Amino acid sequence: MKFGRRQFMTQAAVGAAASLAGGGTAQAEVLFPKDPNKFGRGGSTTGGVSRSEQTLYDCEIEGKLPVDLDGSFFRVGPDAQYPKSQQFEDDIFFDGEGHVSLFQFKNGHVDFRSRYVKNDRWKAQHAARKSLFGYYRNRSSDDASVQDVRRASHNTHVWVHANRLYALKEDSPPALINPHTLETIDSNYTFGGAYTAETFTAHPKNDPETGEMFAFGYEAKGLGSTDINVISVGRDGKINWSAWVNAPYCCMLHDFAVTRRHIAFLAIPMAYNKASPVHWAWDNTKQPWLGVMRRGGDGKDIRWVPGPMNMSDHTMGSWSDGDRFFWDMDGADGNRFPFFPHLHDRFDPVKGQARVRRFSMDLSRKSVRNFDMEVLYPDVTGALSRQDDRYNVDPYRYGFLVSAWGSKGQGWTMFDHQKRTHRTFMPGPDAVLNEAVFAPRRKGAAEADGYLLGVAHLPKENRSEVLVLDTQDITAGPIARVILPGRATPQIHGNWIPGDQLPPG
Amino acid sequence: MKFGRRQFMTQAAVGAAASLAGGGTAQAEVLFPKDPNKFGRGGSTTGGVSRSEQTLYDCEIEGKLPVDLDGSFFRVGPDAQYPKSQQFEDDIFFDGEGHVSLFQFKNGHVDFRSRYVKNDRWKAQHAARKSLFGYYRNRSSDDASVQDVRRASHNTHVWVHANRLYALKEDSPPALINPHTLETIDSNYTFGGAYTAETFTAHPKNDPETGEMFAFGYEAKGLGSTDINVISVGRDGKINWSAWVNAPYCCMLHDFAVTRRHIAFLAIPMAYNKASPVHWAWDNTKQPWLGVMRRGGDGKDIRWVPGPMNMSDHTMGSWSDGDRFFWDMDGADGNRFPFFPHLHDRFDPVKGQARVRRFSMDLSRKSVRNFDMEVLYPDVTGALSRQDDRYNVDPYRYGFLVSAWGSKGQGWTMFDHQKRTHRTFMPGPDAVLNEAVFAPRRKGAAEADGYLLGVAHLPKENRSEVLVLDTQDITAGPIARVILPGRATPQIHGNWIPGDQLPPG
Repeated sequence: MKFGRRQFMTQAAVGAAASLAGGGTAQAEVLFPKDPNKFGRGGSTTGGVSRSEQTLYDCEIEGKLPVDLDGSFFRVGPDAQYPKSQQFEDDIFFDGEGHVSLFQFKNGHVDFRSRYVKNDRWKAQHAARKSLFGYYRNRSSDDASVQDVRRASHNTHVWVHANRLYALKEDSPPALINPHTLETIDSNYTFGGAYTAETFTAHPKNDPETGEMFAFGYEAKGLGSTDINVISVGRDGKINWSAWVNAPYCCMLHDFAVTRRHIAFLAIPMAYNKASPVHWAWDNTKQPWLGVMRRGGDGKDIRWVPGPMNMSDHTMGSWSDGDRFFWDMDGADGNRFPFFPHLHDRFDPVKGQARVRRFSMDLSRKSVRNFDMEVLYPDVTGALSRQDDRYNVDPYRYGFLVSAWGSKGQGWTMFDHQKRTHRTFMPGPDAVLNEAVFAPRRKGAAEADGYLLGVAHLPKENRSEVLVLDTQDITAGPIARVILPGRATPQIHGNWIPGDQLPPG
Repeated sequence: MKFGRRQFMTQAAVGAAASLAGGGTAQAEVLFPKDPNKFGRGGSTTGGVSRSEQTLYDCEIEGKLPVDLDGSFFRVGPDAQYPKSQQFEDDIFFDGEGHVSLFQFKNGHVDFRSRYVKNDRWKAQHAARKSLFGYYRNRSSDDASVQDVRRASHNTHVWVHANRLYALKEDSPPALINPHTLETIDSNYTFGGAYTAETFTAHPKNDPETGEMFAFGYEAKGLGSTDINVISVGRDGKINWSAWVNAPYCCMLHDFAVTRRHIAFLAIPMAYNKASPVHWAWDNTKQPWLGVMRRGGDGKDIRWVPGPMNMSDHTMGSWSDGDRFFWDMDGADGNRFPFFPHLHDRFDPVKGQARVRRFSMDLSRKSVRNFDMEVLYPDVTGALSRQDDRYNVDPYRYGFLVSAWGSKGQGWTMFDHQKRTHRTFMPGPDAVLNEAVFAPRRKGAAEADGYLLGVAHLPKENRSEVLVLDTQDITAGPIARVILPGRATPQIHGNWIPGDQLPPG
């Protein structure tokens, strides 16, 4: 068994180290390794972590904010609470503790705050004043003192449905967060006990017509299990549909697709491997499989079909046209995450570049041998696909991507699938862009008519800004910049929630 | 009437502008002028303000903190809550709202938090989402809506006595602050109504033997009044002595001296002038006067005598040797604050350089014509004198100063008055040093045996650190550095409070 680029210890060594870690009593001072490839990515002097919970009323603003832009821009990411003990300091970024931040827009003003998700993991480490959890999703590497403590980090996404704000991590149930104060209300929310799966996706979808939220959990019956529980939650916040299906093998099912008729999963060769210290390993002997099932059924109709090698993870949009199912994602020909071990080959940075791909399957056909895959824009590489979220389950025209342009830096690209064109805003090589989110210009605005918002980090100035672009022409640059005095917290995903979709503050 | 280097509007214009300001209804976006000489000093992109209230458990630490260093490093400074309206944007830094920060040291760990003082001024502006107060200590420039709102900013110093933490501004009564959470308990604390003066110094002194805190208010009967109320507060937190005296003219009495026998004030030509938009003007036709009175008396014995021109503001130490009174301060030959207007001359940067001066008066002599003044260390210029605060009222040997070394940058200088020597720690030209505070090595440690702590700002990296030096040899550099992810809040003064002098958290 070999693990490609990373020199992970064997599982046996991890176990031994973990039991040693439990015996220590000295309170080490808090210092992250300077190596940006290690856990904490160099610490706060390099912007690898923030760790500082902030409250900033009325951010400084350059430019002119639309006065009727009323809503909350939530974001979350892994912000390492403590350095790992030395034997786990090569743990991956994905294992940092979830730090939620909020930019509240109203009347041309923006209030900012950020709070850690105060889940059981955060509380245990806070009390111990040190890291107690070992490698990513690796219970055997956790300190003896926390073997019964939930290891949920809630660091991946934030989602609002039925007046509730969820902080999400796909290996655990959601945390319920107060959408105004960001205080944690319930760090293991199970819909009043009705949700029995052990896990819950970071990528729910909302159906604007039925008012339902669709979600799923994979590895739903425990680490390594192939079980998937897919549910919908009604306007009343209660689960109103649940079905269980099985994946062809246990693998990372980071996102999914929901249309008016179908629900779909894409199994990719980032597969569970019990010898991997970080849960997953890239197994190029496995094939991607697309599984499509009827929405609202019992799941027995799910059809899994194999297709060309790819690693696609974020839904841009999906829809059904009768029995034909379509799903756009950003995806690469091979592994995109060099920090996960490879079982049989080595990480290839060219194969790791992602482009927007359209997956499709014609379910009217009795026999489907393979799913179809088309690269839509060969000239654009990038990640973190988004759309106008009002179109989560419907045919859509516009998509957004964080695009990469080599030495010219990053961009936010807006695609027009109808015209098959794209436009890109580029802030220049000194800015690092997070995922962008879309805010409708007003209630009932046309698809993608409004604003594109996201955080730009300026590492040379050790500070961050929220850029607000008008989707009528994102290449014109920001109409307004919301200034922070320092670096924003790290981000995986974010969401714009119009003010009328949140309970009163 | 001319106002030297600053182009202040006339009083009439200020009044007119203020009434206009009250009529506006549009909510302006928040943006500070880029000019660092204007209020907000360029805003947060230049580090002129922070405005972000933070909570950071377990700061990153480089180096080794003494495990038995147990206590709280409090600091406070003006951190402009809102940009001033355009007609007041040349207001001075001193008018920013008080933002308190706290580094809590224990067992080699440091927890950081910062909170604005939530006084009436902060609350009124927070509700209005804009600045409502005009020029520094200029009630006539305040918005009509806040003419009855206390304008205390509580931005100058933090002091602990009898288990209470005070945030202080010399134009107003103290604010009581929770020393653990930094929440504001009472923003106009009057010792249960017993304190009737309108003002309270930012520089109390504690007598370690009697357990008393000495303090005073000047302009104690209103703006422009020469009345001084001097008090002591017992271990029980109640006023146990009060006397009223008068200054020779109304001027800035920023600090004072308390010894076992005497209490003293130094009147300086930074005098009240009702035509000055910012309360004070430098009037070189006035002479400095030293006033010394018996501690515990009724004040009628106070003797004011004139002396050589100087502007001295911070006490390093003071003591009485029988009837002879001694007082060390940092002071300059002329005005040190170029941002205050001059009545008759112009600001002279050479005369504005301060050095440690020893003032003295022999009270055994029936007639004293002038006070004496000696420059102790002609080779050291600087500001923000401090000492081991256990020696506030006693003969002392060691003092500390933020010193200036031209292109080599700033330093923290430690003086040994017995040997008349000094040593300086210099972090290099890229660091900006705040005032340093002394922390005893342990309870009962010898004078100045312990640690010197203070914030160093690193503008090029847009972040700050707390440096911890061992007073055995401060030239050896920090034994530990407490790392913040961004800039610390602006600071005027700070204090180290040993853990056993604070109520349980």
